[in-house]
Amino acid sequence: MARAGVFRTPHGDIETPVFVPVATQAAVKALPPKDLKEMGVSVILANTYHLHLRPGEKIIKKLGGLHKFMAWNGPIITDSGGFQVFSLGFGLEQGVGKIAKIFPGEKKNKKIKGVNCGRKNFVKIDDDGATFISHLDGSLHRLTPEKSIEIQRNLGADIVLAFDECTSPLADYKYTKKSMERTHRWALRCLSVAKTRNLQALFGIVQGGAFKDLREESAKFISSLPFDGIAIGGSFGKFKKDMHRVLEWTIPLLPEEKPRHLLGIGGIEDFFECVDRGIDMFDCAAPTREARNGALMIRQGRLNILNSAYKTDKKPIEKNCQCYTCQNFSRAYLRHLFLAKEILAYQLATIHNICFVHNLVRKIRQSILDGKFQKFKKEFLKK
Amino acid sequence: MARAGVFRTPHGDIETPVFVPVATQAAVKALPPKDLKEMGVSVILANTYHLHLRPGEKIIKKLGGLHKFMAWNGPIITDSGGFQVFSLGFGLEQGVGKIAKIFPGEKKNKKIKGVNCGRKNFVKIDDDGATFISHLDGSLHRLTPEKSIEIQRNLGADIVLAFDECTSPLADYKYTKKSMERTHRWALRCLSVAKTRNLQALFGIVQGGAFKDLREESAKFISSLPFDGIAIGGSFGKFKKDMHRVLEWTIPLLPEEKPRHLLGIGGIEDFFECVDRGIDMFDCAAPTREARNGALMIRQGRLNILNSAYKTDKKPIEKNCQCYTCQNFSRAYLRHLFLAKEILAYQLATIHNICFVHNLVRKIRQSILDGKFQKFKKEFLKK
Repeated sequence: MARAGVFRTPHGDIETPVFVPVATQAAVKALPPKDLKEMGVSVILANTYHLHLRPGEKIIKKLGGLHKFMAWNGPIITDSGGFQVFSLGFGLEQGVGKIAKIFPGEKKNKKIKGVNCGRKNFVKIDDDGATFISHLDGSLHRLTPEKSIEIQRNLGADIVLAFDECTSPLADYKYTKKSMERTHRWALRCLSVAKTRNLQALFGIVQGGAFKDLREESAKFISSLPFDGIAIGGSFGKFKKDMHRVLEWTIPLLPEEKPRHLLGIGGIEDFFECVDRGIDMFDCAAPTREARNGALMIRQGRLNILNSAYKTDKKPIEKNCQCYTCQNFSRAYLRHLFLAKEILAYQLATIHNICFVHNLVRKIRQSILDGKFQKFKKEFLKK
Repeated sequence: MARAGVFRTPHGDIETPVFVPVATQAAVKALPPKDLKEMGVSVILANTYHLHLRPGEKIIKKLGGLHKFMAWNGPIITDSGGFQVFSLGFGLEQGVGKIAKIFPGEKKNKKIKGVNCGRKNFVKIDDDGATFISHLDGSLHRLTPEKSIEIQRNLGADIVLAFDECTSPLADYKYTKKSMERTHRWALRCLSVAKTRNLQALFGIVQGGAFKDLREESAKFISSLPFDGIAIGGSFGKFKKDMHRVLEWTIPLLPEEKPRHLLGIGGIEDFFECVDRGIDMFDCAAPTREARNGALMIRQGRLNILNSAYKTDKKPIEKNCQCYTCQNFSRAYLRHLFLAKEILAYQLATIHNICFVHNLVRKIRQSILDGKFQKFKKEFLKK
């Protein structure tokens, strides 16, 4: 199912498969746009919910839109705020991500501690939309499909997402079905207000949890609508292999000519396994977040740069890596910067991690064009 | 007294007058070397005391020296640790900098709070050297003139400084004289161990506080020795004008062919007033530190980017500024990044501040070459 393609936007072409760095608050953390350009990043993803709260989409519009605001002249995707319906709601309450990762012997997931809001979670959902409590100041905010599209229109991204409810991997069949049906009604409402969308592409979102019939129903329904692309939202079950099954149920039912974006997923193995199942686009905050924690991506997994083994290590993070960091700095220097809490540590680590995943997905694309994807996948994953 | 010159080092020429960004822990805070090169910075200053404590000069030597360690192939200056004799000693105890800034009505300077070491200050001085309590872990460290030169030799900078005692601006005549005489004895010891210095230039340091006869004595003594350049150390009295007087006493007694470095000073007015009195080199941590606090340098002084007046301000920080930040981003965007505590805020602000002072000193140099320094000074300072 692996495929290479091009999605054209008013701000340039997106060659797929592609990794999309996350710029939650209109900035890829610790990276100026010039560094992203330098490493060949073509498209980034910003966050409707966060930008609505601060600085507010009206201010961004007044300043000329998101591209001008953040000085990024390439394509931009904005998510719809739908993921926050989950992450600030059930996700926070149950302490889970899109994949639950319950391991044998553990009865239930741990609760996340430190929520200092005085409420159980930050979101209440009804059929019309969702009410959020701002994580910044506790104020109330309301998102509906119409409002989400309006905000995204003001932001002015090239690709906007339909407003959905991302269900918890711990939700039961009944709730997941009810939620999926609501997401479908919201999809229609998004299309209705976005029909004069001109240059803004609108992607629909497939939901249905880890239930085969729901995923199939959702894939068929979303495919039947005039979206410009299809995103596949969580939840994906308890383990990574559950996510693979979800993709195997969903993707064969999607129209071939539309790009497929797997929302919020971006591990090394995921790129291979999900491209293999027909995914074109990935976004994920992990490479930037891990960089700031000193977890540097290497072919074998992660290198914890704080480890004293690197105290006098002259080698770059990853042999043969062409990124600015690996071309100029040793592990010993990076470790020193992390221990000294120098801001430069976070910059150099982020450059490496983003470069690493960007180049890996570029290589995957090239291997597809060369007809050698399966060979590349096998070789890469065995190491 | 204003003059333009060139000081040649093994890692390139330093055109003076010059502003030297501070890279205390082998990194200019929030700036990768490529950004420094991009803005035309030629030379940086790293800190012997800090690098001795972490990661240790032996590790840096093992990794190929400071240039290779931090991937900076231009000239590097290392200070001697002498400034820490003051800043962690009397400076901390009395809560003062190189200029005391006691204003009428204030009886004495405020003590700095929050020293959690359980001791009054971090340094004890004797005639042989100084014993430091590490600010990192409380361990004891000893610096002598010989040890300081040895550390600086291991670091491998192009220009190293003699080990001195920087006295407090609150010290009396008697102590300042005693300390200056000790600094002179230390200067001889530094020269003695550095006589095989080959490619490393050694600068002597003039002390003497704000006392005319001591400054003159120190200027004459340091000038009589075979140093490659002369640094002028604090203290400089209670007000900026006291510093100007110190320079007027000192500089006419210095050899004309040697560069003159004013240690730790770098305000906008200082560049004009001190170049006017014959200074060639400045280093100062203020532009980078202020940048991280959102104080952005403009011709009129400082712009506090957190001010709500900039909420929707489309203008760059400074009109006509050629730095990457001003060429690409609005005040409104920078304010957003600061409010959101994005690491990118500190990077972009630092780029601007360093670019601003670097270019200002470059313009001062050009005005000297054009015979228009006095005109430029008058025009700039009246605004």
